[in-house]
Amino acid sequence: MREIVVGAAQLGPIQRAEPRAAVVARLVALLDQAKAAGCDLVVYPELCLTTFFPRWFMEDQAEVDAWFEREMPNAATQPLFDRAREHGIALSLGYAELTPEGRHFNTQILTDRAGRIVGKYRKIHLPGHPEFDPERAFQHLEKRYFEPGDLGFPVFRNMGAWMGMLICNDRRWPEAYREMGLQGVELVLLGFNTPSVNSQNAGEGPEMRRFHSDLSVQAGAYQNATWVVSVAKAGVEDGHPLNAGTVIVDPNGVIVARGETEADELVVHPCDMDATVFGKATIFDFKRHRRIEHYTRIASQTGVIRPDGTER
Amino acid sequence: MREIVVGAAQLGPIQRAEPRAAVVARLVALLDQAKAAGCDLVVYPELCLTTFFPRWFMEDQAEVDAWFEREMPNAATQPLFDRAREHGIALSLGYAELTPEGRHFNTQILTDRAGRIVGKYRKIHLPGHPEFDPERAFQHLEKRYFEPGDLGFPVFRNMGAWMGMLICNDRRWPEAYREMGLQGVELVLLGFNTPSVNSQNAGEGPEMRRFHSDLSVQAGAYQNATWVVSVAKAGVEDGHPLNAGTVIVDPNGVIVARGETEADELVVHPCDMDATVFGKATIFDFKRHRRIEHYTRIASQTGVIRPDGTER
Repeated sequence: MREIVVGAAQLGPIQRAEPRAAVVARLVALLDQAKAAGCDLVVYPELCLTTFFPRWFMEDQAEVDAWFEREMPNAATQPLFDRAREHGIALSLGYAELTPEGRHFNTQILTDRAGRIVGKYRKIHLPGHPEFDPERAFQHLEKRYFEPGDLGFPVFRNMGAWMGMLICNDRRWPEAYREMGLQGVELVLLGFNTPSVNSQNAGEGPEMRRFHSDLSVQAGAYQNATWVVSVAKAGVEDGHPLNAGTVIVDPNGVIVARGETEADELVVHPCDMDATVFGKATIFDFKRHRRIEHYTRIASQTGVIRPDGTER
Repeated sequence: MREIVVGAAQLGPIQRAEPRAAVVARLVALLDQAKAAGCDLVVYPELCLTTFFPRWFMEDQAEVDAWFEREMPNAATQPLFDRAREHGIALSLGYAELTPEGRHFNTQILTDRAGRIVGKYRKIHLPGHPEFDPERAFQHLEKRYFEPGDLGFPVFRNMGAWMGMLICNDRRWPEAYREMGLQGVELVLLGFNTPSVNSQNAGEGPEMRRFHSDLSVQAGAYQNATWVVSVAKAGVEDGHPLNAGTVIVDPNGVIVARGETEADELVVHPCDMDATVFGKATIFDFKRHRRIEHYTRIASQTGVIRPDGTER
């Protein structure tokens, strides 16, 4: 038994005008709850310090950059790091990263129990579009404000386990889990902001969106025999609803804990890393069963090429 | 609207002593039902002409080869092909293939409405083990009797749609769906024989096995915006229970039709190929969203290599 008690720290909405200090106070309150609940590790959602700003079309780069963090920790987040160290709780949190070279990433970090950053991931599967799209019910401009991550899908040793991270839309891509599965991942930490309605299809509402989220996370967990902790930012941000759907999924793909609100809420589950062993040794023993000679399109061909040569 | 009415022709058990002629008569009866139901295409399960013989340990190669077909159609299956041509119904069926060169494959074929074979797939992800395993509750010797398929994951044009095939354990491997998704697949035809209890874990019973099957098929459908028709052989074969779980899944990953028995049963659904368009053009528009530079492990590394260099 290698148990890690995980707290999935779902956030309710963050309005555009809400300052980082107020948000960090909410994060710290959840961290104190996590301490009381015996958590070893707390996971916050994607872009957890601000509203989901990619819904807003901005042309002034200074206005854009104001949503980004130039270092981590920084003045605004230091109280969170300090409290985590005090409690001896490891953290994973998402934020918009502006590098010294001026590069923009949608980033998540992982700390150890001493508050030291031991891992970083930069979101690879950016959804949405780069220019204003008048056809959409609302904008989703991640392809405008971020570049795709440049760190691959790294796996880190932390607290005696192999941990990786994914961000939001990454969870729908089996390649993302598999890259980590091939590094022996045992615990995937994932945060998301998902609009409750598809901006291009008003008929795809909260229930279908929740189903797609659960389905993707459960399949990623099962097919790689790993725990997945998937944490939402939820509720209505300046009139735009974000879907809830915080879940903790075991290595069988079973949802073992689920958020019940659209507000700040801590979902706790003890995750035994040894529960990953059976799947990794039997049906998903990659070494015995994978046939990479038949997977060449996956890593060499980006888009669709039909047998008749047509593309899409 | 490009509608294909699909009949998923689940089979109940086939006992070891049951001759092929008796099985083919059952297949023909299902085909007649399919005609009455207005089907355009009927899909039968994996190894649909015999019992699931890989549960039996055999050392005499002649005894093994008796379970294989040396040509298709052959004398036993010609009545099925004749009836299909009469009805104008396309077929997909699985069988054990022995080639003129003496190679053994777990194979599935696809015909057009005129009964001509237009596609062949040979199972790539063979589960189980090559030698007698005294630790198991029962044997699963696919790695003994078959070699892995050598045709990749081909996609075929048939009846105005792009169709591919998978067999049983293939359905748990996202690489399999993705290879076909990258060729624009719209309809995946899949047959399986899945023991109701895990031979290495008596605690993993029919409900969990059904859940894993549904989860894998639904994720494969959603993440590639394709229809999947997944057809069971079910019921107790010579004392060995096979799990039911025939489903037809739409390109949103939703189960739209489901078998209700463990016997011969036709599950019918009209599948609109144009329902695949939205997903392929938006969230799973591979050309815009996939990042193959970060997928290199998938096609170059078979087993797990952890960041510290240890393997499994």
